Amino acid sequence: MELLTINNVWMMICTALVFFMHLGFSLLEIGLTRQKNTLNILFKNIFIITVGLLLYCLVGFNLMYPGEFNGFIGFAGFGLEAPLNAEGTLDLAYNAGYTYWTDFLFQGMFAATAATIVSGAVAERIKLGPFMIFVIIYVGLVYPIAGSWFWGGGFLKTLETPFYDFAGSTLVHSVGGWAALVAVWLLGSRIGKFKNGKAQAIPGHNIPLATAGVLILWLGWFGFNGGSVLSADPALTSLTLVNTSLAAAAGGVIAFLVSTLKYKNYDLTMFLNGILGGLVGITAGADQMSPMDAILIGGIAGAIIVFGVALVDKLKLDDPVGAIAVHLICGIWGTLAVGLFGELASGAQFVSQLIGVASYAVFCIITSFIILFTLKKTVGIRVSEREELEGLDVHEHGMDAYPDFRMNEH
Amino acid sequence: MELLTINNVWMMICTALVFFMHLGFSLLEIGLTRQKNTLNILFKNIFIITVGLLLYCLVGFNLMYPGEFNGFIGFAGFGLEAPLNAEGTLDLAYNAGYTYWTDFLFQGMFAATAATIVSGAVAERIKLGPFMIFVIIYVGLVYPIAGSWFWGGGFLKTLETPFYDFAGSTLVHSVGGWAALVAVWLLGSRIGKFKNGKAQAIPGHNIPLATAGVLILWLGWFGFNGGSVLSADPALTSLTLVNTSLAAAAGGVIAFLVSTLKYKNYDLTMFLNGILGGLVGITAGADQMSPMDAILIGGIAGAIIVFGVALVDKLKLDDPVGAIAVHLICGIWGTLAVGLFGELASGAQFVSQLIGVASYAVFCIITSFIILFTLKKTVGIRVSEREELEGLDVHEHGMDAYPDFRMNEH
Amino acid sequence: MELLTINNVWMMICTALVFFMHLGFSLLEIGLTRQKNTLNILFKNIFIITVGLLLYCLVGFNLMYPGEFNGFIGFAGFGLEAPLNAEGTLDLAYNAGYTYWTDFLFQGMFAATAATIVSGAVAERIKLGPFMIFVIIYVGLVYPIAGSWFWGGGFLKTLETPFYDFAGSTLVHSVGGWAALVAVWLLGSRIGKFKNGKAQAIPGHNIPLATAGVLILWLGWFGFNGGSVLSADPALTSLTLVNTSLAAAAGGVIAFLVSTLKYKNYDLTMFLNGILGGLVGITAGADQMSPMDAILIGGIAGAIIVFGVALVDKLKLDDPVGAIAVHLICGIWGTLAVGLFGELASGAQFVSQLIGVASYAVFCIITSFIILFTLKKTVGIRVSEREELEGLDVHEHGMDAYPDFRMNEH
Repeated sequence: MELLTINNVWMMICTALVFFMHLGFSLLEIGLTRQKNTLNILFKNIFIITVGLLLYCLVGFNLMYPGEFNGFIGFAGFGLEAPLNAEGTLDLAYNAGYTYWTDFLFQGMFAATAATIVSGAVAERIKLGPFMIFVIIYVGLVYPIAGSWFWGGGFLKTLETPFYDFAGSTLVHSVGGWAALVAVWLLGSRIGKFKNGKAQAIPGHNIPLATAGVLILWLGWFGFNGGSVLSADPALTSLTLVNTSLAAAAGGVIAFLVSTLKYKNYDLTMFLNGILGGLVGITAGADQMSPMDAILIGGIAGAIIVFGVALVDKLKLDDPVGAIAVHLICGIWGTLAVGLFGELASGAQFVSQLIGVASYAVFCIITSFIILFTLKKTVGIRVSEREELEGLDVHEHGMDAYPDFRMNEH
Repeated sequence: MELLTINNVWMMICTALVFFMHLGFSLLEIGLTRQKNTLNILFKNIFIITVGLLLYCLVGFNLMYPGEFNGFIGFAGFGLEAPLNAEGTLDLAYNAGYTYWTDFLFQGMFAATAATIVSGAVAERIKLGPFMIFVIIYVGLVYPIAGSWFWGGGFLKTLETPFYDFAGSTLVHSVGGWAALVAVWLLGSRIGKFKNGKAQAIPGHNIPLATAGVLILWLGWFGFNGGSVLSADPALTSLTLVNTSLAAAAGGVIAFLVSTLKYKNYDLTMFLNGILGGLVGITAGADQMSPMDAILIGGIAGAIIVFGVALVDKLKLDDPVGAIAVHLICGIWGTLAVGLFGELASGAQFVSQLIGVASYAVFCIITSFIILFTLKKTVGIRVSEREELEGLDVHEHGMDAYPDFRMNEH
Repeated sequence: MELLTINNVWMMICTALVFFMHLGFSLLEIGLTRQKNTLNILFKNIFIITVGLLLYCLVGFNLMYPGEFNGFIGFAGFGLEAPLNAEGTLDLAYNAGYTYWTDFLFQGMFAATAATIVSGAVAERIKLGPFMIFVIIYVGLVYPIAGSWFWGGGFLKTLETPFYDFAGSTLVHSVGGWAALVAVWLLGSRIGKFKNGKAQAIPGHNIPLATAGVLILWLGWFGFNGGSVLSADPALTSLTLVNTSLAAAAGGVIAFLVSTLKYKNYDLTMFLNGILGGLVGITAGADQMSPMDAILIGGIAGAIIVFGVALVDKLKLDDPVGAIAVHLICGIWGTLAVGLFGELASGAQFVSQLIGVASYAVFCIITSFIILFTLKKTVGIRVSEREELEGLDVHEHGMDAYPDFRMNEH
């Protein structure tokens, strides 16, 4: 009983921290984009966290954890059904690490994250209505079905050498990242992003808020990874936090060094994206690594960020916040790294990791393509040129993000 | 001993989260108001949290929890007096859920909240000096006396069917909300708010910060409601967090849908206030409801917000941040909902809830009227027209909130 | 086992809160400085937290806690070496309050703080490259060696009447503060700070973010002081939090009152710095004081802030964020207060506190002088006049902090 209470306290705190990541994502996304689209991005983020939680309550939780199922898709019914004991109160034997309610809420906070990743990549040109439809389907159905394959005990868990993704380099970050890639490709780039085939910088409007967003995300990752231990086990939780923070630090520093060498410039946004890359990279194996492994995995992720951002540009994909490099590429890297570093490293594990990465790639690309392509061909997914040029805030929301901001006479 | 330690850890974390709500309120209030009054609002918020804590230490805690008393007002003496055991160290038998110190600090963080609610409603035109006097009396005396009626074991607790307010829909939010209503009425509206009898929008200056404020408040509510369990009981705390988050989500989504239908516009501030309305609404019964009840209560609160804001406008009351709709109206709704939904629902309970709501209405309206009317007739509560037009920051603080902010040449 | 798990949960949460202080420092520093140097300050802060953690992993932790040593300097080897039990898993007998990993991470988060204090004081004119070199040496070597003298069990711990510094008024805040003093003196003041021998106000660019920074720092102090109990002991942790918050409140209120009397102006930044002064002041003895002591210590710190800031100006030192008054002067005050108030108060204790303060003064002044003077005479530590006038953001980072910020037509 005491142990359940402690474990549950830890899991509730981690739940709160993962919730708080939604503020981190919001600030990062608006900070790195133009002022005229700020309200629109905030609206999307607020929509995602609220609707995401309600959908996870309605269908997601029972799609993701269907109990006995065929390993690919299962559904335990609509709504929540807390297990009761003989006296009719909540059955605390549900799990040694948390109650039924904590389980739902912790997982629900994760669910909304996948869609938030997409939100950043498609910023400044997607139509709000179709995006909301996409979110409903992707958070409500695609994410939990994909999650069931491993966290729900599905086919990736029952491979001879089981696939492993501790906290979601693939199950959360790549699931969001693949959809971001498909969406960016279907949407096309923002007006002015590519001139004569060369990517142009479109600077954001509030780097301080973007920086705050990254530090809030790092804080939130204490809960994202720390809570993925699914108990307060002192050795595992504390090792996980050490690995998480060291990978973040190494990712940032390496991205800073590489980008400084490459571009002769102290680039803060590269430093910040390097931190995020390190965090995404360590997420798949944060409980399996030594701190030295974590530094290596994070550091490599930091280098990947610099080259990944350049690659996305070269492919003529327009990803305003670097979501594809951070969440998709580093998510894949982190997942594969479980086969290369740490307790589980082996050839067979690496193959299983590849199978996992490929399975999610296929599923997420196909589903997000079907949803987004259908939307594109029916209602359309892109705002008009005029709306894009004048800003989505004025057109979709009839308002400005800083309507009363004024300058002093200097 | 272990159990006390866990419980106390949970309560300390919740205390920290409730403290953090003061940042949420600050950002929300400045974000929704004009730039020229930003410093003034921040000053008020900083004043409230610091002076509020000191007053709660000096008199509030012992007014609110006077031990044996007549049920209406009691006082256990000035300052704090920790219970000691035979060895002269802190008596841990004080409570199974927390120590004496934690008890004081958790309740002290609540105390300051009531005044903060008023702060938003009176923004942009109240004189700082009189407002500080009001805060001292309201936080130091009115709030704790009102609180003693139920949380201190007073007459509302000893009704045949006891009144119930889990975490303060009435005891905190309505107590602040009634004073906000009285203050707004006595102060009058801002210059330009009503033209030819019609309410004019006076847009704020920083919606991103307002949005951050709301997400911080939601986070803080994990502690506000989660800590009101007064222990880390796994079933109750986790159910409370689930209900809190689902009500917030439902409140936001319904406010968004209703306002979109009503105004043909994706209104972010309505979405945000809907979230807050859902949070205030669930607060009275967050431990008594099923998740479905929570969604209903929160959703209804979201609808109330849209119509409540319109009603306040129609009554020619000028409430720049929507505090009356959020804290007063949804606070009443949440309190009454305890008689309609969940474990306690019954006709008798509904009557007790009505008695509670009415008792607080009478006490808070009378006390806040006496304080504010006296101030109005003596020192005055409203700044001069010139100060209002030029901004309180320059006049009361001799400074600007963004003194060195400059534009780039585009 | 249960108790270790609880203690460790508390310590991990405190670690997260101390990490979050880096956002508080970042926002405070940019808020109080000019827009043209914002990116540069953020870059420094991000550099400090990432590189600081890596260095603490590489050498700091084993310099600060070398085990048996001569009391002045010791080193237990490079990298981390977790203690294992017979089965090869983490030895949980390491400490009753936390695991080896938690110990490292909690202390690592502290390490970076000292350099962050310097960052604020030298803002707007220091060259980035040399500052990074200074950080590497100061965080990597000076801070942990200094820390070993007391927290590592060194000579200040083994005085007949041992020196006492609970959470770092001296070991963290003064260690940063002394270096800030030396750096400010070697750097010289910003262009335009002193005209005809009189200090000129150089207002910052974003007071809302500075205010948010202070509230985040206060929140972080729950972890900074609360975690310094090194367990979740209910009596001690909760007393510590009460003392911390009351000292912060008293510091703010007294600074507000004194500055209002002195300058006839409601000065928000003085209020904020008073809060920080109260926090720094209580840090050395937060577990030893009664709440009344805490209010006195914090209140005196608040008064010190007002006069301290004026003194720094009078000495022609240019400290843009008030770091010297807050961290150095209040750090000294708080350390000495342990000899005057609370459980340990005595003449002998006061002498030991003086010995401690003097030891750190000598060591930190000498080491920071050697580092910074060497840098000054070789690569130079100050940007060119043109860079300073045009801003470090454009020159060091080729970018602006708000590149796309635009005004509405009003």
